[in-house]
Amino acid sequence: MKLSVTITLKKDVLDPQGKVILQTLQNMGMDSVKNLRQGKFIEIEINENDEKLAIEKVEEMCKKLLVNLIIEDYQIKKLK
Amino acid sequence: MKLSVTITLKKDVLDPQGKVILQTLQNMGMDSVKNLRQGKFIEIEINENDEKLAIEKVEEMCKKLLVNLIIEDYQIKKLK
Repeated sequence: MKLSVTITLKKDVLDPQGKVILQTLQNMGMDSVKNLRQGKFIEIEINENDEKLAIEKVEEMCKKLLVNLIIEDYQIKKLK
Repeated sequence: MKLSVTITLKKDVLDPQGKVILQTLQNMGMDSVKNLRQGKFIEIEINENDEKLAIEKVEEMCKKLLVNLIIEDYQIKKLK
């Protein structure tokens, strides 16, 4: 089973890298961009056919390694 | 309007960072993971209410700055 994890910075955490991308886009003339935040995307293939168990396992990975829970949020989705 | 861009490495491009995460997870005992690839996730807020035009503008940003089309694929989605 294939799952995806989308990791984003929490709303109140500064995102300097996103700010740089935003300014660059605006300097390039694409000034309709109002805001931009950068996050991470991880695709995980797991040996587990039960969707609920697979999500639980990925959740464990997020908590133990992938996500910094103090400053980041995450969302797990099943991929086709 | 808020849109997201998910950027992933093309299928045949090596992903050394993903490999390191994969090995670390396996070394930590989470050995049901079979494969893992890392990508980027970008949330864009744009001054444009027409969905089609907004997607076109984000597509332009992807091609001009955000995505390296030689090694990366991208997917644009509308966020609620």
